[in-house]
Amino acid sequence: MPESLELPSSAPVIDCAAYCGGARVADLGIDQIRGALTRDDQFVWLGLYEPEQEVLRKVQQQFGLHDLAIEDAYNAHQRPKLELYEDAVFVVLRTAHLTPAPRHLEFGETHIFLGKNYVVTVRHGSLRSHIGVRQRCESTPHLLAKGPGYVLYALMDFVVDQYMPIVQHIEQEVEELEDVIFGMTDTGEATARIYQLKRDLLALRRTVTPLVEVCNRLMRFDLPHIPEDTRLYFRDVYDHIVRLNETIDAQRELLTTALEAHLSLMSHAQNEHMKRITAWAAMIAVPTMIAGVYGMNFKNMPELSWAYGYYTSLIVMVAACAGLYVGFKRSGWL
Amino acid sequence: MPESLELPSSAPVIDCAAYCGGARVADLGIDQIRGALTRDDQFVWLGLYEPEQEVLRKVQQQFGLHDLAIEDAYNAHQRPKLELYEDAVFVVLRTAHLTPAPRHLEFGETHIFLGKNYVVTVRHGSLRSHIGVRQRCESTPHLLAKGPGYVLYALMDFVVDQYMPIVQHIEQEVEELEDVIFGMTDTGEATARIYQLKRDLLALRRTVTPLVEVCNRLMRFDLPHIPEDTRLYFRDVYDHIVRLNETIDAQRELLTTALEAHLSLMSHAQNEHMKRITAWAAMIAVPTMIAGVYGMNFKNMPELSWAYGYYTSLIVMVAACAGLYVGFKRSGWL
Amino acid sequence: MPESLELPSSAPVIDCAAYCGGARVADLGIDQIRGALTRDDQFVWLGLYEPEQEVLRKVQQQFGLHDLAIEDAYNAHQRPKLELYEDAVFVVLRTAHLTPAPRHLEFGETHIFLGKNYVVTVRHGSLRSHIGVRQRCESTPHLLAKGPGYVLYALMDFVVDQYMPIVQHIEQEVEELEDVIFGMTDTGEATARIYQLKRDLLALRRTVTPLVEVCNRLMRFDLPHIPEDTRLYFRDVYDHIVRLNETIDAQRELLTTALEAHLSLMSHAQNEHMKRITAWAAMIAVPTMIAGVYGMNFKNMPELSWAYGYYTSLIVMVAACAGLYVGFKRSGWL
Amino acid sequence: MPESLELPSSAPVIDCAAYCGGARVADLGIDQIRGALTRDDQFVWLGLYEPEQEVLRKVQQQFGLHDLAIEDAYNAHQRPKLELYEDAVFVVLRTAHLTPAPRHLEFGETHIFLGKNYVVTVRHGSLRSHIGVRQRCESTPHLLAKGPGYVLYALMDFVVDQYMPIVQHIEQEVEELEDVIFGMTDTGEATARIYQLKRDLLALRRTVTPLVEVCNRLMRFDLPHIPEDTRLYFRDVYDHIVRLNETIDAQRELLTTALEAHLSLMSHAQNEHMKRITAWAAMIAVPTMIAGVYGMNFKNMPELSWAYGYYTSLIVMVAACAGLYVGFKRSGWL
Amino acid sequence: MPESLELPSSAPVIDCAAYCGGARVADLGIDQIRGALTRDDQFVWLGLYEPEQEVLRKVQQQFGLHDLAIEDAYNAHQRPKLELYEDAVFVVLRTAHLTPAPRHLEFGETHIFLGKNYVVTVRHGSLRSHIGVRQRCESTPHLLAKGPGYVLYALMDFVVDQYMPIVQHIEQEVEELEDVIFGMTDTGEATARIYQLKRDLLALRRTVTPLVEVCNRLMRFDLPHIPEDTRLYFRDVYDHIVRLNETIDAQRELLTTALEAHLSLMSHAQNEHMKRITAWAAMIAVPTMIAGVYGMNFKNMPELSWAYGYYTSLIVMVAACAGLYVGFKRSGWL
Repeated sequence: MPESLELPSSAPVIDCAAYCGGARVADLGIDQIRGALTRDDQFVWLGLYEPEQEVLRKVQQQFGLHDLAIEDAYNAHQRPKLELYEDAVFVVLRTAHLTPAPRHLEFGETHIFLGKNYVVTVRHGSLRSHIGVRQRCESTPHLLAKGPGYVLYALMDFVVDQYMPIVQHIEQEVEELEDVIFGMTDTGEATARIYQLKRDLLALRRTVTPLVEVCNRLMRFDLPHIPEDTRLYFRDVYDHIVRLNETIDAQRELLTTALEAHLSLMSHAQNEHMKRITAWAAMIAVPTMIAGVYGMNFKNMPELSWAYGYYTSLIVMVAACAGLYVGFKRSGWL
Repeated sequence: MPESLELPSSAPVIDCAAYCGGARVADLGIDQIRGALTRDDQFVWLGLYEPEQEVLRKVQQQFGLHDLAIEDAYNAHQRPKLELYEDAVFVVLRTAHLTPAPRHLEFGETHIFLGKNYVVTVRHGSLRSHIGVRQRCESTPHLLAKGPGYVLYALMDFVVDQYMPIVQHIEQEVEELEDVIFGMTDTGEATARIYQLKRDLLALRRTVTPLVEVCNRLMRFDLPHIPEDTRLYFRDVYDHIVRLNETIDAQRELLTTALEAHLSLMSHAQNEHMKRITAWAAMIAVPTMIAGVYGMNFKNMPELSWAYGYYTSLIVMVAACAGLYVGFKRSGWL
Repeated sequence: MPESLELPSSAPVIDCAAYCGGARVADLGIDQIRGALTRDDQFVWLGLYEPEQEVLRKVQQQFGLHDLAIEDAYNAHQRPKLELYEDAVFVVLRTAHLTPAPRHLEFGETHIFLGKNYVVTVRHGSLRSHIGVRQRCESTPHLLAKGPGYVLYALMDFVVDQYMPIVQHIEQEVEELEDVIFGMTDTGEATARIYQLKRDLLALRRTVTPLVEVCNRLMRFDLPHIPEDTRLYFRDVYDHIVRLNETIDAQRELLTTALEAHLSLMSHAQNEHMKRITAWAAMIAVPTMIAGVYGMNFKNMPELSWAYGYYTSLIVMVAACAGLYVGFKRSGWL
Repeated sequence: MPESLELPSSAPVIDCAAYCGGARVADLGIDQIRGALTRDDQFVWLGLYEPEQEVLRKVQQQFGLHDLAIEDAYNAHQRPKLELYEDAVFVVLRTAHLTPAPRHLEFGETHIFLGKNYVVTVRHGSLRSHIGVRQRCESTPHLLAKGPGYVLYALMDFVVDQYMPIVQHIEQEVEELEDVIFGMTDTGEATARIYQLKRDLLALRRTVTPLVEVCNRLMRFDLPHIPEDTRLYFRDVYDHIVRLNETIDAQRELLTTALEAHLSLMSHAQNEHMKRITAWAAMIAVPTMIAGVYGMNFKNMPELSWAYGYYTSLIVMVAACAGLYVGFKRSGWL
Repeated sequence: MPESLELPSSAPVIDCAAYCGGARVADLGIDQIRGALTRDDQFVWLGLYEPEQEVLRKVQQQFGLHDLAIEDAYNAHQRPKLELYEDAVFVVLRTAHLTPAPRHLEFGETHIFLGKNYVVTVRHGSLRSHIGVRQRCESTPHLLAKGPGYVLYALMDFVVDQYMPIVQHIEQEVEELEDVIFGMTDTGEATARIYQLKRDLLALRRTVTPLVEVCNRLMRFDLPHIPEDTRLYFRDVYDHIVRLNETIDAQRELLTTALEAHLSLMSHAQNEHMKRITAWAAMIAVPTMIAGVYGMNFKNMPELSWAYGYYTSLIVMVAACAGLYVGFKRSGWL
């Protein structure tokens, strides 16, 4: 049963087959693996999804894997790494994808065991990831014929390719945030979004950065089971990772600056508000004061008896306000 | 008397035994150690708790330990390190645990002397730590049979495993703080909690980071008394430490951002408050001004004699307030 | 058809010629290239502009280029790098120029394939870049005679020379911003401009910094097709890049400080405003209070009957304001 | 005359003696030094305090020291360093101590010349430092017998031991500052104290950090005159320095966070004050407005003639205030 | 014509002479240089000031200098560096001095060509720099006899010595700023001065830091024409540079902290002002409210008819104010 776009069934074994010269030659049950491994001209590719300890134990026996690696693969929660256990290469990758709504970054893990003639993948958490890798590999048999090393490349390429749209999505969000912040249309959510994006970038960074080291080892040193001619492919993955890393760091620095710029803009807005409020307050307070004066009960206040005293006082009030208005306007407070 | 979950008695010697092929073969008094050390097929494991100088002096004589290392073990307050004294490996670890209430981070120290056929641990401060290590080792005799090097691994693994729940607890606190900060329900304690968490992370970091170097030496170089086949185990500890380090650094950066975001949010809130306060102040000041005008005592104020002058003035006041209310509402100040 | 200042026609092949001893000896069609390459005493220089996949495929066959490099050259969006594919050097450069109005930083890409006797350039995005490089090279045949390695230098020098005016423009903008910020004539746009400049610097940095590594490899290691005597030229380019890098970093730090200084200045201005506002508010509030007192309706208020009570009250009001004015003036609030 | 706790006399030569097998065998005048140096079985230890150029010149002749080192020792103001001049080791250390009141960090300098059979110390500035080192060395002749290398260790150990109480004092001050800041009892001095502590830490750091390099050279490389068996001692000093460095860096980061937390707390306090002030202002403004209304002089204001109009108005005022009080209390503004 | 304290004449050649055994043996015209260079026992020292391209061309021919180095020397605007062109060492230094008023940092450049028996200096911009170097060298013939390498040292020492007073001047300005900031006597210029100092430090840093690398090469590697016995001198210069670097970095960090502390202090001051303003506002508002109440026109207001009603009301007002005053005083708002 080849992989499809449907979610994997609850069975821990997603697919298990033997490949010879790049072509699928046999579907295998777990117990048939050891037999298949005896043949030098083919390799076995087993895909597991959150297997029980029992299943893992069986798989360990079939392939002769190391205790510590199996423990890691069972517990998950590893950082991306590449390790050598005697003759087997053990690689941990972290997959990432963005849930649609509410936007949320989800991480999964893929553990890969790579031997002379086998490759075992154990996936955790991320259901979507990896679907299609096997199909794509099977559709290019001349590449798949390079053996397990090529499968490792295909898996890494697939996982790393998933990071880019996430980073681009974050870049776009940052640009939208800039419009909100500098257009002064923030309704108070910009700060929380900046924080959330920074959190996501930090999480992504911890997913991406260790891969620089992993790729370096795959490109430079003589690891077993990595054919000479796949190194250029790993260099390609390496380039992707370095670019992702640079983009993530640049976005982090931009967000830090955005947060400070936001604070600065709010401080500026507060100053502007304070000026305008003050100007209007003065234009209310001055007539109130004048009215207060003529509300005093002194016996001898000649203005009170003037025929046009009231109107004069109103004119004075309006004139005072007009004078203040012009003055504040000129000094830029209004 | 094997170690139990009870707190160690006041005796400085917690346990001392000889092991052969992974099995406990004899309980020893301090004075019997030198005799036991002469046998090549077994090793001695001595556990001390805050020993007096006298006891340490005796132990030094039994095992032939170096002056400077003994001085370190007596004084404590060392940073985690690994040092070679002629034929003995000396390791300093710092233990950490979280007191329940008030939440508080407590540190202890464990000094380990590792020789060809002995391991001596000297603990300071942290009573809880280490209890159970010996029992666990004794329950897997095939591993304990690897000798003192395995005991060192078991101790390091135990100590490092205690850091993870602390870091997770801090991660959880940071998440709670985010809810407080972005839910704007801060009653003024968020800042102090951010500071406290940062302080804890800095302390933890100084405990964890030097272990990277310690593990590196245990994994890579030819130290005496560390069997070849325990290196994979130390690599496992190394992985844990690197992950802890990354988590601690990420949390530190998050807290820094949280502090800035908090400031930004308070600035935003202040702007919003200022707007609302201003709007309501205007709605009180305008009627007061109008009332002031009609409180003036001019003889000739025709409105005062109007039959409905009073009611008109009230209507004008209410209308002015309503106009202001609508205006402020529209401009988002209310 | 030699390169001119006019924009390249829609044809993907901008120019293709064979050079011998530094002199242009033949214009070639794509299909003639393979023939020309057989001659050891000349080299082919082909310039492409955003070629279709088909054209690239043809070019790949003519020169025998590697799949992965061709894929990179087709997709663009690479970071600057230098890679070796068997016997060919593959270099990616990013071009940059400033659009006049609205000021905006635009990036393009140039991919260069360098073989024993050929150099192929594939440009993306930036129409202006590169025009003139070929003319300049052809005008110094004694240098062009050094072969493809010199062409690579000429291209790098050309691209790197374009960065300097951009960085200088940014430096000048930062100086203008300083005048705005410290002259306190900010109308609210300084913050957005600081942010925009920082964004540009981050983008430039990602364009410039990887070239340090590229130049290092060109200067230090034994790459094929780079003649010994061009290394001094690449060291010259290296010097430019390091200086650009330093300038960019210094400007970034200056902008960070400028943002903080701006915030500080606004806080200072707010304090000053608050003081002045308070002073004037007091000078309105005190007469209002006094007027209120004499507006009370008590039967027995002797002052009300005084002949000069009203004038006295006015004098008291003015005196109080004068006193406040002097006091505030002295304490620096006005 | 051995060193005592009294301040050194104005004489530049504090003490000068020859040692053989760890025991003081002769007190020397400056002119007798050259003679003593001819004997292979003893070494000379000369202590100088801010010597005149003339004295230094004489000393230079006696020991055959290098011009540049003598110039350094005369001018002082060097950074801590270790340098080789032909066959002599030249070490510069900076001493530090805290003046009691006003608390103030004072630095001095010690220059040490180390040859095959001599050690010369030149002290500047810090009168207190070094007193007791010679006495302590003389009291452990078995260690002093190791020669000049051991004297260098004793001096370094002495100098480095003086840093720790200073750093601990700063740690304690930081803790006190935390109580002031988070207890909100800052009377405006917390900021200046944070700044002062940061300044001290920066100065200390420049004193401590270069010693890492100095110790590294003393531990690792084959310097002349440093006996093999003193290396463990220098490793001990190295450990101290690394711990000091870590503590200084942690305190610096804490202070940065404290400054930001302080700003955040003040912003929070300002918001809280603004809310409370606003609430009380409203409770004064509303009755004033009501009183204003009933202070209007309209002829036809029926309420004015009501028997209990006045009391009703008072009740309305009080009720309005009570309503506001409850409302503000509920919304947390009071 | 030896160098004097007068400004160099407009002639590009400041001085040109041949030295033998440290003594000036001949003044040379440019055309005589090639002849002088043929003699092995002497070296030529030529000093140029902003030479025309023509003059440089002549000089290039006389000494046989490299095109690229000559181009650099003509264009100036290089970063400090050391480069090898075949058998010649090419060094770029940046000079700095502080103009008196307005205080302003000015930079110049000195390019030095160093060959087996010649040294050529080309100065740009800074008229003051270098005057006196030749005189000082000529006055110590035993040192000058070491050859061109010693001249290079003398020039570097001279240039680096000019940095120190500048850095000390900045240190002093920072201390003055501290007094302004923490004495709260800032009239709004502190922020601009902090920014200006940071700008100067960044410029200085770019001048000083590359010299670490230059000195390293002069001290460590086998450069031609640098005699073995001048290395100790370059180590001395190196020490100066490292100390300058450390001071610059420490001052930068101090200024960053000062800016933050300044902001914090202003925020604190604003809180204090707000409290005091509020207190006085309350003491004006409460009597105003009371006066408003007794300004109401209700018919039945018994207090109005009381004989001492007015006085009672005044007493109530004063008592309220006194109560508020005491209350605010106690709570620290006044």
